[in-house]
Amino acid sequence: MAAINVTVWNEYRHERHNEQVRGIYPEGIHNAIGGYLKSAGGFEVRTAVLDDPDHGLGDEVLNSTDVLIWWGHLAHGEVRDDIVEKVRTRVLDGMGLIVLHSGHASKIFESLLGTKTGALKWRDDGEKERIWVIEHGHPIADGLGEYIEIPKEEMYGERFEIPAPDELVFISWFEGGEVFRSGCCYRRGKGKLFYFRPGHETFPIYHQPEILMVIANAVRWAAPAVGAGAAYGRVAPLEPIGK
Amino acid sequence: MAAINVTVWNEYRHERHNEQVRGIYPEGIHNAIGGYLKSAGGFEVRTAVLDDPDHGLGDEVLNSTDVLIWWGHLAHGEVRDDIVEKVRTRVLDGMGLIVLHSGHASKIFESLLGTKTGALKWRDDGEKERIWVIEHGHPIADGLGEYIEIPKEEMYGERFEIPAPDELVFISWFEGGEVFRSGCCYRRGKGKLFYFRPGHETFPIYHQPEILMVIANAVRWAAPAVGAGAAYGRVAPLEPIGK
Amino acid sequence: MAAINVTVWNEYRHERHNEQVRGIYPEGIHNAIGGYLKSAGGFEVRTAVLDDPDHGLGDEVLNSTDVLIWWGHLAHGEVRDDIVEKVRTRVLDGMGLIVLHSGHASKIFESLLGTKTGALKWRDDGEKERIWVIEHGHPIADGLGEYIEIPKEEMYGERFEIPAPDELVFISWFEGGEVFRSGCCYRRGKGKLFYFRPGHETFPIYHQPEILMVIANAVRWAAPAVGAGAAYGRVAPLEPIGK
Amino acid sequence: MAAINVTVWNEYRHERHNEQVRGIYPEGIHNAIGGYLKSAGGFEVRTAVLDDPDHGLGDEVLNSTDVLIWWGHLAHGEVRDDIVEKVRTRVLDGMGLIVLHSGHASKIFESLLGTKTGALKWRDDGEKERIWVIEHGHPIADGLGEYIEIPKEEMYGERFEIPAPDELVFISWFEGGEVFRSGCCYRRGKGKLFYFRPGHETFPIYHQPEILMVIANAVRWAAPAVGAGAAYGRVAPLEPIGK
Repeated sequence: MAAINVTVWNEYRHERHNEQVRGIYPEGIHNAIGGYLKSAGGFEVRTAVLDDPDHGLGDEVLNSTDVLIWWGHLAHGEVRDDIVEKVRTRVLDGMGLIVLHSGHASKIFESLLGTKTGALKWRDDGEKERIWVIEHGHPIADGLGEYIEIPKEEMYGERFEIPAPDELVFISWFEGGEVFRSGCCYRRGKGKLFYFRPGHETFPIYHQPEILMVIANAVRWAAPAVGAGAAYGRVAPLEPIGK
Repeated sequence: MAAINVTVWNEYRHERHNEQVRGIYPEGIHNAIGGYLKSAGGFEVRTAVLDDPDHGLGDEVLNSTDVLIWWGHLAHGEVRDDIVEKVRTRVLDGMGLIVLHSGHASKIFESLLGTKTGALKWRDDGEKERIWVIEHGHPIADGLGEYIEIPKEEMYGERFEIPAPDELVFISWFEGGEVFRSGCCYRRGKGKLFYFRPGHETFPIYHQPEILMVIANAVRWAAPAVGAGAAYGRVAPLEPIGK
Repeated sequence: MAAINVTVWNEYRHERHNEQVRGIYPEGIHNAIGGYLKSAGGFEVRTAVLDDPDHGLGDEVLNSTDVLIWWGHLAHGEVRDDIVEKVRTRVLDGMGLIVLHSGHASKIFESLLGTKTGALKWRDDGEKERIWVIEHGHPIADGLGEYIEIPKEEMYGERFEIPAPDELVFISWFEGGEVFRSGCCYRRGKGKLFYFRPGHETFPIYHQPEILMVIANAVRWAAPAVGAGAAYGRVAPLEPIGK
Repeated sequence: MAAINVTVWNEYRHERHNEQVRGIYPEGIHNAIGGYLKSAGGFEVRTAVLDDPDHGLGDEVLNSTDVLIWWGHLAHGEVRDDIVEKVRTRVLDGMGLIVLHSGHASKIFESLLGTKTGALKWRDDGEKERIWVIEHGHPIADGLGEYIEIPKEEMYGERFEIPAPDELVFISWFEGGEVFRSGCCYRRGKGKLFYFRPGHETFPIYHQPEILMVIANAVRWAAPAVGAGAAYGRVAPLEPIGK
């Protein structure tokens, strides 16, 4: 099987401006994830960040990306609308998209799902999260046990303003009393989306082996199929009309 | 039960500029549908058209509308983005939305679903359509037989670029050889959407009793429930953390 | 609107043989639920129990029941297969079915869903459950706040061996660290099913107002629609073949 | 990637007792399909038929089968209930299942889906079928054009008594005026099911390249993932209760 072309996109502001975050991700969240994928094998990995020209997402990059991973938080508003629209078009044309943690409030996630995906409960007190596998036969859960435990995380709680997922793979339990749909699969156009909840920048989430394994599984799951042909617009009848 | 407040929105250009269409809908498509609903009972009906101030969809109208019916075709691009956003917000807050026929390519439908809903096959040669009921227990199909037959209609054919419907109520057969998902239910935020395919302006679709009955059923189905409370944003824990 | 004919079915063994349970439900769980529905208005309520002839579910009862509520636990195996098949047929023909708590392992639930619905985690240590509303616009959640809190309950934990629900209304958080899909809607044939998790016999769950309100909401939601016609078997073509 | 172990199961009565069918499938439908899979590569293929001991589905065969293909028609009633239950258990444990054409009325399909899957319309007049791809990004549609055309087929028409598919990949148009959900994906337990409509024994459907390609795609899609762990039954709390 040919390698999957992955582009790991990161806002990359926290790591440059906040010493605590830099301590955890000295080369940025994108390189923590990208480095894992490189070592896992089967992936061709590139990274791109907000402050690159065109956010690092020029046509050449997008058109040769099989799966795009997205992490953003502070600066969703700075992402250019024309780039968002290009990413959306590429997803509908078949590119996979993995949206991580605070990426739920990104323009690209909201534009592809149509609801106000920024709306949820949260609390960054560093509490325990237990991510339960709900669909234990799903390829995104390959190799996991019954759950993933994260000792200290930011909490996200329901109601989360998303369309009901096509497949719900994970549900999180939080120490402080909330639950959350933490692994959500969608098919949109020819492309596949996966939202994966964990990943606050002040915790070493993207160094935790199960979390990285899920991300790699999700990339494989979201990689485009060849699929079938589709044509749109005015067409002649295939059968006689008005016999 | 209190009456359901329905607003029937129509682009209302064809009927004013095209004699054939005016012949079929002398008072506009909005009044053909609205008139039926008035006579059916249980609905408070208003109408609104593109060329009204604020497209007839000022805050007062939107905030007192339980279910909005949408018909547009030529002038989707003229619908103001700020009004589209208000409608979208109202739907997510619970207002029902019934999108008819060529409304599939409207800004409001695309913004709520996230895919390029304008993409489909079409042909306006006036062929036979047979709309099969797929979910015969669904309230939107109440009172129908096994199918609705329309002697002359515009054809819409798959691939239709929508997210898989939460409930698929109707599938159309076309004389010329195509099929189409013609009755599609979605839950988005607190609101419900129904897309109903039939309704080309050059045919008397909105005078056909079963079609009008389906629209009335859909309005009842989409009328808002009271629902439950929801709160968003930063919250304190409900249980002690870090025991 | 005509009253909805509800039959509340209960195994009714615990209450007769266990003093603790009898203390909580002196007239049986069926009468706790049925009594509430009677007082709520809009329902015609009957009850039936395992040890009635034909389990109280003769043809006359079944054929005049709009919605059947099911509570069983110890004696699933004693329910006659022919009665289960009759109930299943009635559901597919449009009767609503509300399955409560330990009814997850009943023959009727398993036969309608096809999976081994008895499989889940459990623990009856009397811990706190918080049932979060996930779909806050759903009629089954009408009138609730963001969640229902039950001070002492039996825990059920995922993986719960059910098909992914058509609509997931509630997710439970448990003090002991698990989560559960606690409010699951299904459409099967012409009928609607709702599984609602709470209700262990050793706790006064069916005296808690929000729980009873959800059950009443669910009965209204599951009440049959008129629906559309359906015919099966060999049919003549509607259009000429082999032109 | 390791080869996928496929078992092609066939009732194998028509071919032995009906000269016309034998003319089309001299070695049986199982060998027509199995032969294609062998030549396609990537599959280890076995066949099994109704009149084999244990229907050819002893424990050793079932336990080493990744994906089971099922064709039956006349003799659904002769399939032993204990074997059906073993197949069902294997599917819930992860084995893929591809049900073809008249297999819709088989015990195994009905027991896994819970509805009366035998109920549909039909007519074996040998009419044109056009199978439209609805989800053009789905791996089961890999390599197809917009539709598959079958010159002469048995018609199946809606209402088809199945639970709404988790993914609807194909919809058929029939010359005689009906439509049908012809490619239906389900996830049940750890396993995946695909129902594929075409395949009447009196037509050379299983010699048509696109049909065989879809079957091969479906086998790849249904092949088990490793998945995650799951445990059931009484468990101790993961967190302290009653603090």
